[in-house]
Amino acid sequence: MTRLHVPVALRWSDLDAYQHVNNVEMFRLLEDARITAFWRHAEAEVDEEGLGPWPTAVLDTGPHATSHTLVARQEIEYLRPLGFSRTPVRVEMWIGHLGGASLEVCYEVHDGWAHGTARTGPTSGGEPYARAATTIVVVDAATSAPRRITATERAAWEPYVEEPLAFRRRGR
Amino acid sequence: MTRLHVPVALRWSDLDAYQHVNNVEMFRLLEDARITAFWRHAEAEVDEEGLGPWPTAVLDTGPHATSHTLVARQEIEYLRPLGFSRTPVRVEMWIGHLGGASLEVCYEVHDGWAHGTARTGPTSGGEPYARAATTIVVVDAATSAPRRITATERAAWEPYVEEPLAFRRRGR
Amino acid sequence: MTRLHVPVALRWSDLDAYQHVNNVEMFRLLEDARITAFWRHAEAEVDEEGLGPWPTAVLDTGPHATSHTLVARQEIEYLRPLGFSRTPVRVEMWIGHLGGASLEVCYEVHDGWAHGTARTGPTSGGEPYARAATTIVVVDAATSAPRRITATERAAWEPYVEEPLAFRRRGR
Amino acid sequence: MTRLHVPVALRWSDLDAYQHVNNVEMFRLLEDARITAFWRHAEAEVDEEGLGPWPTAVLDTGPHATSHTLVARQEIEYLRPLGFSRTPVRVEMWIGHLGGASLEVCYEVHDGWAHGTARTGPTSGGEPYARAATTIVVVDAATSAPRRITATERAAWEPYVEEPLAFRRRGR
Repeated sequence: MTRLHVPVALRWSDLDAYQHVNNVEMFRLLEDARITAFWRHAEAEVDEEGLGPWPTAVLDTGPHATSHTLVARQEIEYLRPLGFSRTPVRVEMWIGHLGGASLEVCYEVHDGWAHGTARTGPTSGGEPYARAATTIVVVDAATSAPRRITATERAAWEPYVEEPLAFRRRGR
Repeated sequence: MTRLHVPVALRWSDLDAYQHVNNVEMFRLLEDARITAFWRHAEAEVDEEGLGPWPTAVLDTGPHATSHTLVARQEIEYLRPLGFSRTPVRVEMWIGHLGGASLEVCYEVHDGWAHGTARTGPTSGGEPYARAATTIVVVDAATSAPRRITATERAAWEPYVEEPLAFRRRGR
Repeated sequence: MTRLHVPVALRWSDLDAYQHVNNVEMFRLLEDARITAFWRHAEAEVDEEGLGPWPTAVLDTGPHATSHTLVARQEIEYLRPLGFSRTPVRVEMWIGHLGGASLEVCYEVHDGWAHGTARTGPTSGGEPYARAATTIVVVDAATSAPRRITATERAAWEPYVEEPLAFRRRGR
Repeated sequence: MTRLHVPVALRWSDLDAYQHVNNVEMFRLLEDARITAFWRHAEAEVDEEGLGPWPTAVLDTGPHATSHTLVARQEIEYLRPLGFSRTPVRVEMWIGHLGGASLEVCYEVHDGWAHGTARTGPTSGGEPYARAATTIVVVDAATSAPRRITATERAAWEPYVEEPLAFRRRGR
């Protein structure tokens, strides 16, 4: 069971009046992790740590991309408040469902990113601050109609498919 | 079946590169509607339309409030893209569950706010752009422990309790 | 001396821990007013008040626009804290300098937008919350090189040229 | 001539439709650098690099702080577009003016933060993406009236006083 491990740095402006990361900004952190891990970014191939691109970063991006993505649904459980730290949070991601034209990205938000952490591996464990899932539809950029996930994309993503998150607080 | 009808103005910065409201900013719009309708704001009692406060605005706010709220979970379905308009969106809200120390706020995001729209009433109908729910826990500001919803709060909120949203895309 | 009068609605998330509009968000309000008044937006021609487009809204926009704009400099003085109100702020704008390929937009941020306020007219007076200026360069979208302001643009903008802001706090 | 060197990580959401850091978000980066370097944050003392607090981080923060700060003015020149990189930008800061109750923080935004860079030192040179200045007033939290910069604050900040920025594009 292999996850993607993506560092996302916090900002002071993420905090609310109680010095916790605001509930909306938490989705911003997830968006940042997701774009980092799934989109191909020429300008980002060389990074501070010299680790190269994420293995799942195969979606074309930029103004000339022939595909783009839509978010169809999102769900999040906030398990405990996340305060500020200069150390980036570690967003662990996997794919809970890989469909014909869509995928469900699952996330756990942990603290304590360590410089040099490998990009993929098992969960580092610990109770997350939040658990979330996003359903993404891949669409044709010209028509905005859903398009099939390609063989290349499927091959890049399949190693990260595991059980989807079971949200605990959904039922009352 | 009475809902709260809250106008929220869009901003150009809400749009993504495809000229649609970004999926994270949609949560910002919901947050704005929720704070407007549930928090008491002395400075906001007099508004442009002269309609006075929302009937559900009974939570104390500001640096001296004895209570505050935590968001425990959120869920959203994006049904179709929301483009820019100078006319505010109309966020229709109701309470899907009123518990001992928590409540679930349900939302539908519609377009076409009309100046002078009443603050409460039945849904105006039409297919929404997004449907969402937020579970909020009321906590004691000093201890951060959940506290019971007061009789005053319950009386203000009960008229807006109806069936919770049934999310369509949850199961695969 | 004719100014543009643009309403911009506040959001709760604009506020900092002291319940004042955050200094960065103030630039977001100015950006919103500037885009509203200078860019042409098909989708925005019909608005809640039925007043139609701003007379200065002649810059093409969207993914197929042949021009776009760069911000070259900005300056702002915050004169007194701006708190929250449900009533939009009124951003009064004029052009402090109309050059060959650039213009300087000047702003005053006032409170108390009244429904139905005319889009152009003299200042409504009063001490503003903030005074600011932005230098904008019009560039060719394909080459990113500055391009001449067209005769149509110049004709639309010249009625709003007046003395640039004299910032009071610049010198020490 | 010693400057503070503060890393600030970019986010994808900082980019506009042209894949450049949005002009408003640039102020957010400056705010983040300034809070990091001037405010004392217990929770941030231990960071990923183990370098400890910035030497200038002597302003109290949090809900019980007896002082806070107001931004009185800001000015920025955008010299060239800043694109996305996974490597944090390096915000070089110094104090252009240290008054009785206020200070002017000057900034240059550079790219290419290197892991382990010292917190203080001479400029690393190179043409910045942007140059900016912010005037900050220290105020009493209870009264909001300006208060004198203390001897401790002055001692911490004086080593970083140098000539203020001379903005090139100010005069026309």
